[in-house]
Amino acid sequence: MEFSLAVRVYYEDTDAGGVVYYANYLKFFERGRTEALRELGFEQSGLGAQQDTIFAVRAIHVEYLLPAQLDDTLSVVTRIRLPGKASLEFEQLVVLENGYKILTTATVKVVCLRASTLKPRAIPEDILQAVEVYSAG
Amino acid sequence: MEFSLAVRVYYEDTDAGGVVYYANYLKFFERGRTEALRELGFEQSGLGAQQDTIFAVRAIHVEYLLPAQLDDTLSVVTRIRLPGKASLEFEQLVVLENGYKILTTATVKVVCLRASTLKPRAIPEDILQAVEVYSAG
Amino acid sequence: MEFSLAVRVYYEDTDAGGVVYYANYLKFFERGRTEALRELGFEQSGLGAQQDTIFAVRAIHVEYLLPAQLDDTLSVVTRIRLPGKASLEFEQLVVLENGYKILTTATVKVVCLRASTLKPRAIPEDILQAVEVYSAG
Amino acid sequence: MEFSLAVRVYYEDTDAGGVVYYANYLKFFERGRTEALRELGFEQSGLGAQQDTIFAVRAIHVEYLLPAQLDDTLSVVTRIRLPGKASLEFEQLVVLENGYKILTTATVKVVCLRASTLKPRAIPEDILQAVEVYSAG
Repeated sequence: MEFSLAVRVYYEDTDAGGVVYYANYLKFFERGRTEALRELGFEQSGLGAQQDTIFAVRAIHVEYLLPAQLDDTLSVVTRIRLPGKASLEFEQLVVLENGYKILTTATVKVVCLRASTLKPRAIPEDILQAVEVYSAG
Repeated sequence: MEFSLAVRVYYEDTDAGGVVYYANYLKFFERGRTEALRELGFEQSGLGAQQDTIFAVRAIHVEYLLPAQLDDTLSVVTRIRLPGKASLEFEQLVVLENGYKILTTATVKVVCLRASTLKPRAIPEDILQAVEVYSAG
Repeated sequence: MEFSLAVRVYYEDTDAGGVVYYANYLKFFERGRTEALRELGFEQSGLGAQQDTIFAVRAIHVEYLLPAQLDDTLSVVTRIRLPGKASLEFEQLVVLENGYKILTTATVKVVCLRASTLKPRAIPEDILQAVEVYSAG
Repeated sequence: MEFSLAVRVYYEDTDAGGVVYYANYLKFFERGRTEALRELGFEQSGLGAQQDTIFAVRAIHVEYLLPAQLDDTLSVVTRIRLPGKASLEFEQLVVLENGYKILTTATVKVVCLRASTLKPRAIPEDILQAVEVYSAG
């Protein structure tokens, strides 16, 4: 299963080349991961306060295939792989909604930390079980 | 009548003070104006290409009353005043959705330019008539 | 006296209109205020930790006169007015460096808060005395 | 040889986690590449207008090792590899200036396009020769 989030392109997202600025796709990808977790009942602000847990991006690999433009409606597609006890790997796409064209792909490795100490910790069991619904494998 | 747009606060919008960064409210306000125009059938990319028309912000006044925070759901409320033939004035609010609290207010003066020359021009008649639906006065 | 900070325009600052995005001037203005304070020996991260003091923007008024473009070198000019015990007012300009053209002007009202409680507090005496060097009046 | 650019961390760069937001390192990396090229006499705005040439990022890989914080002074280190006629590969680091700690590393693949058609083109000979000064191999 995968999670899909609609994202509209505004002037704030574009640059003088007339297309979405390359760093801003990382904002789209993060919105997709955040809403995928929220759909499962987990909010990042709540996790930090109640479970002493934050997620931090450890590595990203992004391929820019085709540019997005002003007023485009995009779809951010998110799947989760579960490589270990303390980290998650996301596979994400930005797709042009009315053309089924893949514009950008990302692999994002996220680690789980204690909010209080910023030391690695195991992913809480309830999150691990919940995110399996987006598992690619 | 007024136009309301829901906006979610993500990490991208916040700063190390733990709240939404002051410049980022201008992104929210622009999303509100853009969607208010789109609701009436006008897209900024289409206006530039087909009607040789762009809108440019000439002045803003923003009051920051209360801070927005990560995961908040905000509502951007947009009304339009019509002070002249070549400019529009917007009155906008950012409101906390579950508390009816006004967080930020803005007055935004937008001028109408020819896309080809960047010289002032009269607002096209069809836009003028359409935006009256959001008119405050 | 006034404080001047050189700022270069990169792709990140521009939008699909080919010019600097209107919200991004607020970043330039904040860099100017931050470096003006740093020049006097005050760092915002240090103020929060050691003096329980943060500054928060309460209101801005910005006039957009002429657009800045990719690769432009800008100068952010900062002066301070001292209207009260708990707030500062900055007058700021963005100027095109090789043309002495004023592109954007801002009036920024900043309030002084306790970092721990976010309640208003008097501006610490050493800061008040120091910023008088940038005083416009 | 390598090119080094000093970058200061402002509120605009940080997020509610208290550290630099992960997408914003891509801005720092782009400033580094831009200034490395400018040092050699090439400005992106000039390339587009005079040589019908733009560079577009095709892929990035970023490793986030340690976080940067408000008021940090960073150094963006840029080296260039020359894998082909129509693309450049950059190796970049963000280093904490007063600690010689590597915070973030990036490999960035940039392709050369005609500005008028957005089709791939060979990198102009004068640029190819000039960038060899930053060549890692």
